[in-house]
Amino acid sequence: MFPLYLPVILSPKLGIMLYSLEQLQQMVEKALQDLDYGRRMPPGLYEPVGYIVSIGGKRIRPVMLLMAANLFSDEIKHALMPSLAIEVFHNFTLLHDDIMDDAPIRRNHPAVHVKWNQNTAILSGDVMSVLAFQYLTETKQELIHRILPVFTRAAMEVCEGQQMDIDFETMTMVTEEEYIRMIEKKTSVLLAASFKIGALLGGANEKQSDLLYETGLNLGLAFQVQDDFLDSFGDQDTFGKFIGGDILMNKKTFLMVKALEIAEGSDAAELKILISSRDTDPAIKIQKVRDLYIRTGAKQKAEEKIKYYFDLALSRLEMIPVKPERKKEILCLANLLISRKY
Amino acid sequence: MFPLYLPVILSPKLGIMLYSLEQLQQMVEKALQDLDYGRRMPPGLYEPVGYIVSIGGKRIRPVMLLMAANLFSDEIKHALMPSLAIEVFHNFTLLHDDIMDDAPIRRNHPAVHVKWNQNTAILSGDVMSVLAFQYLTETKQELIHRILPVFTRAAMEVCEGQQMDIDFETMTMVTEEEYIRMIEKKTSVLLAASFKIGALLGGANEKQSDLLYETGLNLGLAFQVQDDFLDSFGDQDTFGKFIGGDILMNKKTFLMVKALEIAEGSDAAELKILISSRDTDPAIKIQKVRDLYIRTGAKQKAEEKIKYYFDLALSRLEMIPVKPERKKEILCLANLLISRKY
Repeated sequence: MFPLYLPVILSPKLGIMLYSLEQLQQMVEKALQDLDYGRRMPPGLYEPVGYIVSIGGKRIRPVMLLMAANLFSDEIKHALMPSLAIEVFHNFTLLHDDIMDDAPIRRNHPAVHVKWNQNTAILSGDVMSVLAFQYLTETKQELIHRILPVFTRAAMEVCEGQQMDIDFETMTMVTEEEYIRMIEKKTSVLLAASFKIGALLGGANEKQSDLLYETGLNLGLAFQVQDDFLDSFGDQDTFGKFIGGDILMNKKTFLMVKALEIAEGSDAAELKILISSRDTDPAIKIQKVRDLYIRTGAKQKAEEKIKYYFDLALSRLEMIPVKPERKKEILCLANLLISRKY
Repeated sequence: MFPLYLPVILSPKLGIMLYSLEQLQQMVEKALQDLDYGRRMPPGLYEPVGYIVSIGGKRIRPVMLLMAANLFSDEIKHALMPSLAIEVFHNFTLLHDDIMDDAPIRRNHPAVHVKWNQNTAILSGDVMSVLAFQYLTETKQELIHRILPVFTRAAMEVCEGQQMDIDFETMTMVTEEEYIRMIEKKTSVLLAASFKIGALLGGANEKQSDLLYETGLNLGLAFQVQDDFLDSFGDQDTFGKFIGGDILMNKKTFLMVKALEIAEGSDAAELKILISSRDTDPAIKIQKVRDLYIRTGAKQKAEEKIKYYFDLALSRLEMIPVKPERKKEILCLANLLISRKY
């Protein structure tokens, strides 16, 4: 069930067995390969599972779970299968989201519903959701009843967040509060749950694991608002995505929600025209909306918000009563997530 | 969490608290209503869940789970939420199956992907799968780790069975063994798991609960082969479906698989022509294929098979070491399932 080797480690002079980000990523990658979906029957069901899991991502969520376990315990191998549960569940949501969004590309590869077909994407996704629950419970028996409710709640909230996101498309007005609740559910709760489940598996009590949940939640919010920010103000080469995509699609990002709330008079009128117009040259539309984001102060509000959530995340992490040295890798990961160039 | 009343019941003179089929059906119906999906947020996600769960069915699976618990224990209320887990999971598979089959009608009502849209049907189905795991674990804590693997395995097999069924559509030859394995996974394992989970919740040991698993598995096989049989040889008024539908769609039912295996010479040639022809008058095609089912002996084989699996189910039930009086309601249900008029 577990890989035979578990690579060892940092900080031996402090008497702490701390795994690095890279070690944990490798551990997760190896364990995912060992699941060997390519050999399972029927292939029509499991090959797409192997495909979506193999085409990558940075394995942030399972790494977060393992780091959280490692925060409280030197021994983390019983957290490996639950960490895969989170990764497989996350990939399942991507698979179904791509059908819903009719998105042909995922991580520079054809999406499953394109490479195979829609029915395959639905059914392979369904089995991944079940596999996630299976892996989650492949751990110490006495901990199962503590981690399961954390996972089921997060999993439900991810679905709720996705529905809210769909609902927003046809709403003329979305408040900042509604927007934050949506990204919290759609993105942040799974990061938060990864931290909390890891903490519980590492032997943390409810209060400690809740602090780590809040760390993950706020880190997720900071990350998502930053993602919105970078889509309009990022550097194309660093961000890796086309800048202005959200603006062209009139997507209700943090910036747009905030600008619609703040803008008055001629700014408000111009923004409404830019949103409803279909004829504006794309480059001009992007430039004008970005100018409005700056002029209304929406850009600055977004930057403040990113900092607010990031600081909140760090303050919660600080409150956890373990040696500061143990927090090193989590702090490092948090900074990495937020340090993407503007 | 549990309804306040639990109606009480039968055989008091024997000192046994046995719930009747009708009482259990009412209990399940009431508990499903109490889940109150109509009030959950966001409505776009939960209204379809409330809809598919409310339009009915006979609640066979949750009733089986509760009967299995009642076979070993007078006290069954801690089995109620897990019984809803099975029902909600079953309804989730129907919801996604209807998208995959492009089936517009479910239980005489518009399917969810028709009444709402496809994306809603995908996402509401996804959350139902998660809800099922939530309900399954709302029971005695010390039993969770015993029932979870039974459920996850069954849930995975249901997906595998559905994929096999899809694969069969494009295969020219399917063996009886492959066919039985497909219906076992697609239909029987969830009935078997309902029985086994109920037994475990009622306090049965592994061996006893496995006997009930086999009872459910074989009952499911008998039921499914009978369902195939009735689609070709049933009485339209009793069966409630158009007779001959499977024949017109060239569906690989037990009868077709068996006839293709047995038929020789001119019979084999005629069957192949009937399958490949698109011009044959529907009534004539149904009549000719039915005649072939009789002439080749496929009809008789199907009848033998139904009896074989049904007897096997009963023999496994008989081996369970509890008072015969306690088995009364399960026996009654088994006979009901198989007594649909030919």
